[in-house]
Amino acid sequence: MAGSSFGTIFRITTWGESHGKALGVVVDGCPAGLALCEEDIQKYLDRRKPGTSNVTTQRREDDLVEILSGVFEGRTTGTPISLMVRNTSQISGDYGNLAAAYRPGHADYTFDQKYGFRDYRGGGRSSGRETVGRTAAGAIAAKLLSQMGITVMAYTRSIGPVEADMDRFDPGLILTTPTAMPDPTANEKALAFLADARNRSDSVGGCMECRVTGLPAGIGDPVFEKLDANLAKAIMSIGAVKAVEIGDGCAVSSRFGSENNDAFRQKDGAVVKSSNHAGGVLGGISDGDTLLIRAHVKPTPSIYQPQQTVCRDGEEITLEIRGRHDPVIVPRAVVVMECMTALTVLDALMINMSARLDRMVDFYR
Amino acid sequence: MAGSSFGTIFRITTWGESHGKALGVVVDGCPAGLALCEEDIQKYLDRRKPGTSNVTTQRREDDLVEILSGVFEGRTTGTPISLMVRNTSQISGDYGNLAAAYRPGHADYTFDQKYGFRDYRGGGRSSGRETVGRTAAGAIAAKLLSQMGITVMAYTRSIGPVEADMDRFDPGLILTTPTAMPDPTANEKALAFLADARNRSDSVGGCMECRVTGLPAGIGDPVFEKLDANLAKAIMSIGAVKAVEIGDGCAVSSRFGSENNDAFRQKDGAVVKSSNHAGGVLGGISDGDTLLIRAHVKPTPSIYQPQQTVCRDGEEITLEIRGRHDPVIVPRAVVVMECMTALTVLDALMINMSARLDRMVDFYR
Amino acid sequence: MAGSSFGTIFRITTWGESHGKALGVVVDGCPAGLALCEEDIQKYLDRRKPGTSNVTTQRREDDLVEILSGVFEGRTTGTPISLMVRNTSQISGDYGNLAAAYRPGHADYTFDQKYGFRDYRGGGRSSGRETVGRTAAGAIAAKLLSQMGITVMAYTRSIGPVEADMDRFDPGLILTTPTAMPDPTANEKALAFLADARNRSDSVGGCMECRVTGLPAGIGDPVFEKLDANLAKAIMSIGAVKAVEIGDGCAVSSRFGSENNDAFRQKDGAVVKSSNHAGGVLGGISDGDTLLIRAHVKPTPSIYQPQQTVCRDGEEITLEIRGRHDPVIVPRAVVVMECMTALTVLDALMINMSARLDRMVDFYR
Amino acid sequence: MAGSSFGTIFRITTWGESHGKALGVVVDGCPAGLALCEEDIQKYLDRRKPGTSNVTTQRREDDLVEILSGVFEGRTTGTPISLMVRNTSQISGDYGNLAAAYRPGHADYTFDQKYGFRDYRGGGRSSGRETVGRTAAGAIAAKLLSQMGITVMAYTRSIGPVEADMDRFDPGLILTTPTAMPDPTANEKALAFLADARNRSDSVGGCMECRVTGLPAGIGDPVFEKLDANLAKAIMSIGAVKAVEIGDGCAVSSRFGSENNDAFRQKDGAVVKSSNHAGGVLGGISDGDTLLIRAHVKPTPSIYQPQQTVCRDGEEITLEIRGRHDPVIVPRAVVVMECMTALTVLDALMINMSARLDRMVDFYR
Repeated sequence: MAGSSFGTIFRITTWGESHGKALGVVVDGCPAGLALCEEDIQKYLDRRKPGTSNVTTQRREDDLVEILSGVFEGRTTGTPISLMVRNTSQISGDYGNLAAAYRPGHADYTFDQKYGFRDYRGGGRSSGRETVGRTAAGAIAAKLLSQMGITVMAYTRSIGPVEADMDRFDPGLILTTPTAMPDPTANEKALAFLADARNRSDSVGGCMECRVTGLPAGIGDPVFEKLDANLAKAIMSIGAVKAVEIGDGCAVSSRFGSENNDAFRQKDGAVVKSSNHAGGVLGGISDGDTLLIRAHVKPTPSIYQPQQTVCRDGEEITLEIRGRHDPVIVPRAVVVMECMTALTVLDALMINMSARLDRMVDFYR
Repeated sequence: MAGSSFGTIFRITTWGESHGKALGVVVDGCPAGLALCEEDIQKYLDRRKPGTSNVTTQRREDDLVEILSGVFEGRTTGTPISLMVRNTSQISGDYGNLAAAYRPGHADYTFDQKYGFRDYRGGGRSSGRETVGRTAAGAIAAKLLSQMGITVMAYTRSIGPVEADMDRFDPGLILTTPTAMPDPTANEKALAFLADARNRSDSVGGCMECRVTGLPAGIGDPVFEKLDANLAKAIMSIGAVKAVEIGDGCAVSSRFGSENNDAFRQKDGAVVKSSNHAGGVLGGISDGDTLLIRAHVKPTPSIYQPQQTVCRDGEEITLEIRGRHDPVIVPRAVVVMECMTALTVLDALMINMSARLDRMVDFYR
Repeated sequence: MAGSSFGTIFRITTWGESHGKALGVVVDGCPAGLALCEEDIQKYLDRRKPGTSNVTTQRREDDLVEILSGVFEGRTTGTPISLMVRNTSQISGDYGNLAAAYRPGHADYTFDQKYGFRDYRGGGRSSGRETVGRTAAGAIAAKLLSQMGITVMAYTRSIGPVEADMDRFDPGLILTTPTAMPDPTANEKALAFLADARNRSDSVGGCMECRVTGLPAGIGDPVFEKLDANLAKAIMSIGAVKAVEIGDGCAVSSRFGSENNDAFRQKDGAVVKSSNHAGGVLGGISDGDTLLIRAHVKPTPSIYQPQQTVCRDGEEITLEIRGRHDPVIVPRAVVVMECMTALTVLDALMINMSARLDRMVDFYR
Repeated sequence: MAGSSFGTIFRITTWGESHGKALGVVVDGCPAGLALCEEDIQKYLDRRKPGTSNVTTQRREDDLVEILSGVFEGRTTGTPISLMVRNTSQISGDYGNLAAAYRPGHADYTFDQKYGFRDYRGGGRSSGRETVGRTAAGAIAAKLLSQMGITVMAYTRSIGPVEADMDRFDPGLILTTPTAMPDPTANEKALAFLADARNRSDSVGGCMECRVTGLPAGIGDPVFEKLDANLAKAIMSIGAVKAVEIGDGCAVSSRFGSENNDAFRQKDGAVVKSSNHAGGVLGGISDGDTLLIRAHVKPTPSIYQPQQTVCRDGEEITLEIRGRHDPVIVPRAVVVMECMTALTVLDALMINMSARLDRMVDFYR
């Protein structure tokens, strides 16, 4: 089924496997007139590239994006924007028992059950490399939102037990710390924690958070197309995410109503909330406050310890995974969360344009 | 925008406001040949009706569903099934300052921002009564799934700080305890906790959980239409839900990979997992294990304490809400979660039918 | 499959069978703020009711529409508008061999092949009564378009060999002549032709045409969502339509380019065409000229002559259809064409709102 | 808006402009297990390449397709298939007044009105080259259908006044005659007619026809997703098509019911029709007979005669178009019609798989 598309009016379709020829995305429904060049997209892709602080430069040549259509004389034309990244480092080498064995925590078994066979090279379509397409598309969405004064910013909230202290929040650190944590102290602690886990051939989980500011009230639809429902889908569709929270999230289930309600008040002629437990959404519609989403990410399933598993033919084996794998997914997934949020919010803004007759009549006057 | 529909092949469209003439749903895409009568649907609607154990009977006449189309001689015909529930108890009485004031925690303000005005009677389309339509449709989905040996079961996991002990899990209690808790001890404690909150004119939050058993492996699609992503949207679209977890959910973010991976093993010729941290989904595709979803629900926003808020004209007021409101949303929302899960899973099963060429060729042979 | 919906942003879902309890439609995505009452819809439904000039009044009580949701204090709220028409005249009487026999030109055989059985009462979902839902929804679309200065008008172009002379075009006649022809002379001739066909127990085909004026240039999308492609689908989805033409339609296939191109020129600061062979669409996008669509409708398949056919069990029989059937479909289908056109055009206008970045930024400023 | 996609389950998304870097398509929803290589697609692309009989060879290097994803070890994997054709012959030369002037019969003016500006090089997205993507995708659909015994075949029915005689129908000629006519005599006459038109610097229109054989009864849905409605949209979305007919098409509007109904009869245990005026569709659902669709195509709008038009700034000018343009569109569009038909029929087959409960239960047993 056509499950590789996301969005209704601003609609993206991604394609590509981790060890195929290339990965890419078609962005359909981008308004005409947005200034766009490859560098706008490249800087987002660079954020999801592998690398700790000291390896980033040497991999600089990786994942170069090419704009194949939809941009003319530096501006989007309103027609589909096709973006492609060639896979350069794939080696069609020996996959050993990976062709036959089902790696725990991976989609090998489920792909075989669904399709009868699978592209076993590096995870194929269920690899983390699949996010190249979403990220490239999200970069365009984020640029477009910025023209409307809307900012989307994601960061690492926690790695294992190490949580960023929001009182020390410094957005400038998100792009510079290896952990994408906005708190320098937590960043240091998390790096030590990660080094320790790696030494024990293990991996760790983490939590990421995303904030949207500048979003007007009234965006999102009641019932099934609630803004938070669409965000939940968008974020849960990122591989390895196992939980999504809006605003105070899980905490609300042990709260009293008198604690959890956000009072309204008047400020400079506008209606504002005196707190934001709701995370910027009421009844599925944005309330003008900061949108706040949190995602819990499981530990990298590829670990260097022997694991019990089964092969295609039913044989039970002990599997030892080799190769290079990140000890934690979150720092590289932060930009993906930012992009999925941007795509969701932009689409909701477009859909909202026909919500009121008076505004529609004005538009066509 | 057309945000009142859910699903791709098995697609439902709900309509109706809490104090309008009626509420309903059109179920389009139901296969022909399902035995269906009003009682099949009524028993699901009855579960979401107001009531503690001692008031259920006296309200028996409420929310009677009528099948208007799509069923002929007791079986579905393949054409749209239209279901309607007349609103009988709405009083077009005095809504006092509710027409003007924005109730904290409700969608009054966001509806006004979106549409310019709103149906202020009892929440209109953002009322909990909106779930009548989903529930009626979900009853059909659940019946259809049961023909394929698939069972969907939701229950209350916790109310405030009181959590059900899964070691005492008794499914028979879900439909009989006022809390919909499957643990008799927790049910008693929760009732006492609720009574206390109500005495203090307060409300409380809670957590609900849903299990799907009998689902074959291979259901759901990679990338954007992951089974868990669609479940997240489905469940987050239920009013008052603020977080959705799959399997171990939030807990994974502080785990090690060696703890979190589920080993595969062979059992009676089938591949099984030795644990189910994943909650039955790997790479967005069902793995044949029990599907496990959890939702955190905020406290009922309507409380009987004075609250600070603002009116349409910007005036700040102290609001006192009257009327009858449940002190906790979860017990009545459990069936809604069950229904949204059934709808999501059934649609995914239909979509999966063309995943393999050999099976498709067989189908049309 | 969910095939009972039409439109993307302004999306309708119809339901109901000819001899079921009721027929209806849910209109989702209607902007908030449109003044709407039942009479707005009733006058469209009245145009598709059975009747020659002298029977219209006595059937006045038929097909009364009820607005069940989505309208509050006389205006649309932005939430789904549910409309219902109760079937009052259905008689659950003796359908004789119609339950078993496949009527030539009807969908009896194909329904049985698709679904395994069918509601054989009066055609069920494939009856002409199915258009009640579309027409009710189209009435809302047409009213909304009129607020923007856009007019949709359909009429009978020909019945059998009798064609309306466009030089005598009188729009006032469309609603008053029994044939819905805008030419009084052709109307008379067509009535005589019909009387003759009826005397011979036969039925006749016809052609209907629809004009949209006031539509701005720029509506519709290139490639698959061309305005004319969507109109073709909309009109071909009306039962009995076997051909759809845009502008000069079929005639273009025997033309020279020098004849068929419409020259552009300047008029009062605007770009206009000096002819309209294109029918108001270039490259799938409206050009500001009158939109012109034509549809060819087959003769009513129910005729009173003996016909050869087959029964469910394979037996060959001679079928004689009884009951009351119109000798021609077109006059009652004209309003359906008008409604499907209105729905298509309105949806395209909504979708177009995010085509340009500058206009989108302005909208949200 | 996202108007570059077609289909629901088998869904394609095309991209690219005539003078951009490349054109392509993403095919999402192709079942796993179809043997597929570039040659399967190339042979369809070759049919839409420019060329009379004597120029085909020298352009052999043009429009070479590359499979970028979705195929592993020679078989489709179930994940999106990305196909790309590099534009090799585009010259970023002098477009002269084409950047400013609105060519009659083209989409220049409407693109400017919609998007505010346009890629004026060779028509951009509204060029005939846009069909490269559809054709590549359609080749896959056609191959898949052939595995199920379903054949789709399109050909030229007429060019200007020259019509193929169906009594001389020779399918082998479709791929070998320059006109794609299945009648050798008509082919000769049409070539003479075309030579004459070209000498007069003019272009001509034509008609193409498509037949689908082997399609089982029961495909397509009632009401809006009728098989013929979707075919009408598919075919009308091909640039330059101005009319679509199903079966006897326009002719039915001047028929009597007694002439137009197809009688059913029994043959070898199956139900068949004794004629096929309906063109293989009754009530929007296939009846097991040959599906017959006809499309009327306007003359190539680019002619070498002086034409009156207007520029972006409103100035009226006389335009003289240069370059190489086909004198008739039909012969190269025939394969596009075949592909759009294949895509539509395949999608309908997939959607139909959940029409009956018994078959769905069997599928998952």
